[in-house]
Amino acid sequence: MALPQRLVECVPNFSEGRRQDVIDEIVAAIRSVPRVWILDVESDPDHNRSVITCVGEPEAVVDAMFRAIAKAAELINLDEHEGEHPRIGATDVVPFVPLRGVTMQDCVELARLLGQRVGEELGIPVYLYEAAATRPDRENLANIRKGEYEGLKEAIKSDPDRAPDFGPRELGPAGATVIGAREFLIAFNVYLNTDDVSVAKKIARAVRHSSGGLRYVKALGMLVGGQAQVSMNLTNFKKTPIFRVVEMIRREAARYGCTITHSELVGLTPLEAMLDVAQWYLQLDDFTASQVLERRLEEVIGE
Amino acid sequence: MALPQRLVECVPNFSEGRRQDVIDEIVAAIRSVPRVWILDVESDPDHNRSVITCVGEPEAVVDAMFRAIAKAAELINLDEHEGEHPRIGATDVVPFVPLRGVTMQDCVELARLLGQRVGEELGIPVYLYEAAATRPDRENLANIRKGEYEGLKEAIKSDPDRAPDFGPRELGPAGATVIGAREFLIAFNVYLNTDDVSVAKKIARAVRHSSGGLRYVKALGMLVGGQAQVSMNLTNFKKTPIFRVVEMIRREAARYGCTITHSELVGLTPLEAMLDVAQWYLQLDDFTASQVLERRLEEVIGE
Repeated sequence: MALPQRLVECVPNFSEGRRQDVIDEIVAAIRSVPRVWILDVESDPDHNRSVITCVGEPEAVVDAMFRAIAKAAELINLDEHEGEHPRIGATDVVPFVPLRGVTMQDCVELARLLGQRVGEELGIPVYLYEAAATRPDRENLANIRKGEYEGLKEAIKSDPDRAPDFGPRELGPAGATVIGAREFLIAFNVYLNTDDVSVAKKIARAVRHSSGGLRYVKALGMLVGGQAQVSMNLTNFKKTPIFRVVEMIRREAARYGCTITHSELVGLTPLEAMLDVAQWYLQLDDFTASQVLERRLEEVIGE
Repeated sequence: MALPQRLVECVPNFSEGRRQDVIDEIVAAIRSVPRVWILDVESDPDHNRSVITCVGEPEAVVDAMFRAIAKAAELINLDEHEGEHPRIGATDVVPFVPLRGVTMQDCVELARLLGQRVGEELGIPVYLYEAAATRPDRENLANIRKGEYEGLKEAIKSDPDRAPDFGPRELGPAGATVIGAREFLIAFNVYLNTDDVSVAKKIARAVRHSSGGLRYVKALGMLVGGQAQVSMNLTNFKKTPIFRVVEMIRREAARYGCTITHSELVGLTPLEAMLDVAQWYLQLDDFTASQVLERRLEEVIGE
């Protein structure tokens, strides 16, 4: 089967990482919608949270998410939920990501559409975030999730700044859901030839946005298997490309007498991000994706 | 339409680059076979030669090539052919290239199959070359083409070393055809920040196989638009990858006080070659092509 002309990715986070039967029922709700495909399901018992990566045609994905949110509200009670990861809802976060034949603005529309249905039909308060945010202080997920489920219970009623974009101004046991649109997120880690975690921490501070570094980089320094690692989320590879991050880390590491031993991509990365890397290092000024044989074959045969 | 599970590339060279009606008839002969797609037709009047790039299912491509060779034999008379490029036949060279679901050995079989049909049914002498060669001195195209059409006329009869693999030991006006199997060829040029062509020539000598450099590199130094250029054919990007060639040129250029200003890929390149570049520079030890989102989508949706 040829790939659909229009594809979005959606990565809903559910506040259940322990009861496999609950996770299975949520997955089944998503699978019940044709033209939606699940790429990955990751459940973390410590976080008590599951992250489902799916792709599909835009309208189908909205439908699948609605069913999954309804199912999660039925099976997960936030009053009984414990876990390390911050959360405000049974379905905690639902980001739409443009993949193919779809713009960011299209994804903002999908987020609003889903948000309205969830608010009105399920009675769950919905906050729009990132590219779909209706106010600047809601672009950042952390602001919306402040105080978590327990804190929001009171604040949603009393604080006008915490009024949801859709749905009632009160929380039931399913909590509230954050829905939005963002760019594809690349999880990328760089390892250094040292067991001194302080070097990784200093480099993380240098490259990440929050402390003065590159705009679309979140970074932490940690020790993994006895090796210092700079662990990152790259939240917009088009504006802050991987090669620039790596070369900055390389230079900072050199200043501490260190080098990069290797790096790793966790999960998936768009082809464009990898081609950008090859193009930059080879200095291929006029390169276009149509020069990739497989892309050209799709153009000639696939359509 | 989804891409076929088995695909070969074929890049036949015909000794006609001036008469458009002849080129059109050859192209039409290829197009008359279903499941074969033409990606590119390049005609050079000075060389009096056309290169057609096509892809398709293996058996269909063999059929299309047979029809094209028959058509070229009907319309091109080597006794009347002039051009700068060395040639021995109306259809001069026909390389098969494995693309997808097909091995190099499969392509060797296709070359033999086509060679036998061309020799027996069309009475055109056929030499097998590169991976399909039946003797080591026929791996190199230049050896087979020695003396060109005019020289081969006599030699094919008198010299046992010039006996063809298929077909008669005498040349008609369609000459002989060289058929074989090889890896995908990447045409890659690197530009230097100098107008001194001697630097490009020295670097070309350093990196190319024939004068002691990298195994699967052919290189020439030239002046293009007033800028020194190292012009290359990379004949096996799996064994001599692009990044290694570029880094060697970078180092050699530095020795002459020069740097690379930019580079270019002429025509198409397999995705794998570009991913290899990104993987090497980012030091992504455990990267696999399945981590490319689009590849993953094909696996999940496309099959």
